[in-house]
Amino acid sequence: MLSGEEAMKVGFVGLGIMGSRMARNLISGGYELTVHNRTREKADTLVADGAGWAETPKDLGAAVDVVFTMLADPAAVTGMATGGDGFLEGLKKGTVWVDCSTVDPDFSRQMAQAAKSHGVDLLDIPVVGTKGPAASGELVFLAGGKREAVERCRPLLDCMGKELIYLGDNGQGAAMKMVVNLLLGSAMSAYAEALILGQSLGLSNKKIAEVVLDTPVAAPFLRGKHPLLEQKNYQPHFPLRWMRKDLQLVAKTAYEQNVSLPATNVIKEIYGLAQRSGLGDSDFAAIYQYLSGDVK
Amino acid sequence: MLSGEEAMKVGFVGLGIMGSRMARNLISGGYELTVHNRTREKADTLVADGAGWAETPKDLGAAVDVVFTMLADPAAVTGMATGGDGFLEGLKKGTVWVDCSTVDPDFSRQMAQAAKSHGVDLLDIPVVGTKGPAASGELVFLAGGKREAVERCRPLLDCMGKELIYLGDNGQGAAMKMVVNLLLGSAMSAYAEALILGQSLGLSNKKIAEVVLDTPVAAPFLRGKHPLLEQKNYQPHFPLRWMRKDLQLVAKTAYEQNVSLPATNVIKEIYGLAQRSGLGDSDFAAIYQYLSGDVK
Amino acid sequence: MLSGEEAMKVGFVGLGIMGSRMARNLISGGYELTVHNRTREKADTLVADGAGWAETPKDLGAAVDVVFTMLADPAAVTGMATGGDGFLEGLKKGTVWVDCSTVDPDFSRQMAQAAKSHGVDLLDIPVVGTKGPAASGELVFLAGGKREAVERCRPLLDCMGKELIYLGDNGQGAAMKMVVNLLLGSAMSAYAEALILGQSLGLSNKKIAEVVLDTPVAAPFLRGKHPLLEQKNYQPHFPLRWMRKDLQLVAKTAYEQNVSLPATNVIKEIYGLAQRSGLGDSDFAAIYQYLSGDVK
Amino acid sequence: MLSGEEAMKVGFVGLGIMGSRMARNLISGGYELTVHNRTREKADTLVADGAGWAETPKDLGAAVDVVFTMLADPAAVTGMATGGDGFLEGLKKGTVWVDCSTVDPDFSRQMAQAAKSHGVDLLDIPVVGTKGPAASGELVFLAGGKREAVERCRPLLDCMGKELIYLGDNGQGAAMKMVVNLLLGSAMSAYAEALILGQSLGLSNKKIAEVVLDTPVAAPFLRGKHPLLEQKNYQPHFPLRWMRKDLQLVAKTAYEQNVSLPATNVIKEIYGLAQRSGLGDSDFAAIYQYLSGDVK
Repeated sequence: MLSGEEAMKVGFVGLGIMGSRMARNLISGGYELTVHNRTREKADTLVADGAGWAETPKDLGAAVDVVFTMLADPAAVTGMATGGDGFLEGLKKGTVWVDCSTVDPDFSRQMAQAAKSHGVDLLDIPVVGTKGPAASGELVFLAGGKREAVERCRPLLDCMGKELIYLGDNGQGAAMKMVVNLLLGSAMSAYAEALILGQSLGLSNKKIAEVVLDTPVAAPFLRGKHPLLEQKNYQPHFPLRWMRKDLQLVAKTAYEQNVSLPATNVIKEIYGLAQRSGLGDSDFAAIYQYLSGDVK
Repeated sequence: MLSGEEAMKVGFVGLGIMGSRMARNLISGGYELTVHNRTREKADTLVADGAGWAETPKDLGAAVDVVFTMLADPAAVTGMATGGDGFLEGLKKGTVWVDCSTVDPDFSRQMAQAAKSHGVDLLDIPVVGTKGPAASGELVFLAGGKREAVERCRPLLDCMGKELIYLGDNGQGAAMKMVVNLLLGSAMSAYAEALILGQSLGLSNKKIAEVVLDTPVAAPFLRGKHPLLEQKNYQPHFPLRWMRKDLQLVAKTAYEQNVSLPATNVIKEIYGLAQRSGLGDSDFAAIYQYLSGDVK
Repeated sequence: MLSGEEAMKVGFVGLGIMGSRMARNLISGGYELTVHNRTREKADTLVADGAGWAETPKDLGAAVDVVFTMLADPAAVTGMATGGDGFLEGLKKGTVWVDCSTVDPDFSRQMAQAAKSHGVDLLDIPVVGTKGPAASGELVFLAGGKREAVERCRPLLDCMGKELIYLGDNGQGAAMKMVVNLLLGSAMSAYAEALILGQSLGLSNKKIAEVVLDTPVAAPFLRGKHPLLEQKNYQPHFPLRWMRKDLQLVAKTAYEQNVSLPATNVIKEIYGLAQRSGLGDSDFAAIYQYLSGDVK
Repeated sequence: MLSGEEAMKVGFVGLGIMGSRMARNLISGGYELTVHNRTREKADTLVADGAGWAETPKDLGAAVDVVFTMLADPAAVTGMATGGDGFLEGLKKGTVWVDCSTVDPDFSRQMAQAAKSHGVDLLDIPVVGTKGPAASGELVFLAGGKREAVERCRPLLDCMGKELIYLGDNGQGAAMKMVVNLLLGSAMSAYAEALILGQSLGLSNKKIAEVVLDTPVAAPFLRGKHPLLEQKNYQPHFPLRWMRKDLQLVAKTAYEQNVSLPATNVIKEIYGLAQRSGLGDSDFAAIYQYLSGDVK
């Protein structure tokens, strides 16, 4: 924390896999932090380490200069931000709300309007990176909204990430996140299909990985996923149900923008079938397990 | 060429985008080369540079110790190799046929049987790499077949490529190539969909490329493709009709192996629609053009 | 019109292909009708035939006992029903709003809540049938909402349709319509693919129709569509853009309900590509034209 | 059997669900029948009822004037027809081979060539209809090949079916069968998705069936399937693995003909996933069970 920001009081709403790690980095950065979460227990270790607990989102809003949200989906964001108990009701004019949740651009622009009516600037700043980078403060931030407000929040974002990319007006951060997660979900599905095909032909997973992960046809994040696949370790870095949700936001957005994404829509449904088969809380790499027929 | 191999006479059948460049590297390597192609003209510059021309595949077979084939699909391979005029009829016992074509493993094993009945060892050694690496001798070879025969051919392969990966018995080279091209075709389709979505939301192609091509979610080969997409330059490095053909081989193989590849099958059909719209001879990156609706 | 209902004043909002024909049947049935539409001209012939024109939806609401809506999508319904000028603002307590639009069940239940807060009963009563049955009063109504309110509206519905199927609480009419249009859009797509395959093999469209339209594998509505396909007559009975919209509602609903519909999602995207190629205002049968490659 | 055909000796190869019932109708029709099957036991009841057993396909060929085949796929047909023990080796010149198997047109034309080289006329006459119509002699035959040869076989076909549709040269019967099974497989998949969606919204299977099976949007064969779905009775009338196989033939044919069938290709993969999950020997209606997530 640079001098001059000392007074900036920070709120954090949404303490799941990502949010809890991001919030911790704000504490480590020296910020006075107030937190809220749908279930109180998830806040316990942060509170033990000095964070304040707000009973309601509104209480949190009233106590801080900037609110970060890291929530599951648009409905969860609406639930925390709006209504009589929402933090928008509590926030003072001139404060900033940074929504790091993955939401669609249309929704984000609607929220920006709602925030504006309370005199609050919404920034849509979703992240690239999962559990590991969230913990180590190496997220990449994709920022939409007023540039000046983004700059004011930069020191806070620097605590949690390694890079901040400014993309334009409200919704542009969310837009780029749609693009990134379309690629992420597609690459995972393609790799799952590739492994399954190769194995069926007698190639070992190990050999396939050796060959393809070194060629330019494979997305580099797969180098990290592959060992987990080999171990059938589907502990969630990025839960499959979130990927399904994100691809649904992608599909909704494509519809609204009058573009068509045939492959992405099928992939979305395969994640859906995998979720239905009980893999929703596994890592999204478990699409491999599903397509392998290796399910109960 | 190492001493001791001086006497090795080499044949090359199939002088398209890839084959012509590979054959040239054999000439540059000092080998005595005989060539054949469905249409004679494509052999002209190689012949001018010292290659011999064989009127029929059989004649070619009779003149050489090893035959390389780089052909469009299984039907083209059958046409050159078998029948009364096929090179198998001409080849002496103990010679080697190296098939660099992308074919499915089942077909490759059938051809190995056919070759064996003529006393010829077939190696399935398809390549990773397109026009550029073919010209510069930087292909990667994925080899299936008898290891000893592969070793005998290594000096020749070293003229044309930078790496040789031995994968096992007949069909295993072809198998790995299926895996690689599944990934290649899927990644291109996903990137096309990602760009189209992003643009529809007001993000420039340039900005999307800047952000995603540096993240681990994008396959590295896309860094080379992107500038061509921006310029609408679809000059074929790897023609779209070949990608459609390869994904059909993937789908056929998956069926035979009793595995299912839902995303790959849809992507195959989108390449098919693109081909039908007149983009078959464009680079496979033109799937982006097709999905953009930017077709006549 | 039965005696006793004489006093029932009826409003109709949305005078497109379907609504204009339905409204005319209410006039023919002897009802005093007030109409409103986004563009005034579409009301001209109805007004010439005795319908009243309301300048705003609210004015319409204030003048009637029951409002029918037949609108393009949830956004259009929201636009007419809610807000300061919406008809809910005008409607008296105890009146009924019959929404015949194809909307998703979740939206319909939200609207029912909004209506309830004005003391109005919403019925979701979408229709089965396109332009022809709308004109001849042979629609089938799929009704959700309070049964007693449905019964009160039955004489009006009898003017416009041949059958009324009561399905349960709010949202159940909309739910069944999702089911019906999933089948409709899928069957049209399958028939398009079947014709294209058959033709490519040398079977005439005529012969295919002769054989398959008489077997139990083809949905009977295709008997009506086939002659139009043969004539390349894509005058809209049910515009392709509506089918795309309806399948998007289906996909959204499936997501919310945690079920997966892989085929439907792909088909949705193919309608989307067709729309993008300029076929949005053609009949949805034009998916055949699109898949044929017969587009500009 | 009409007088004049008394001397026609008939062979039947392939005594599965369909073939055994068809063969029985030939016995009932008074024909002298010789049978062969991969596994002998399936012939036992027919032999008990008077059919002769041939130890090899070649023996069968030598004993008859016309051979019917009803086999699983192209590989099975090749296995019985060709090679030293194949029935083509046994058949006299001027005899007829009627292939009722579902195979692709390209394969059928190849077989016609092989038959011709033995002086045998091949007719491709696949059937519309499953177990029930096969038993009751109510199949519909789709005939390709020389018309005169078809006419010679008509009395035999009349024993087994209710209708014979002549479609043209070799391959045209197979072509129409591709069209029919594309529609069949698609309609079943669409109905499965429709039921699953409807149920998720609280509509009962019974209510959905009541409404949609009476509308023109549902293929009539679904009226027969629905009660079985309700009872979770997946005893095979048409095994799911055959549907997957047929759709693979459709996809192969579409590729060869340079047409694209996106929905059919996805549906094929869903049947494939269902087969992989253990439903291959269930009726193809079990795609509903698979998509419901109701699998082990």
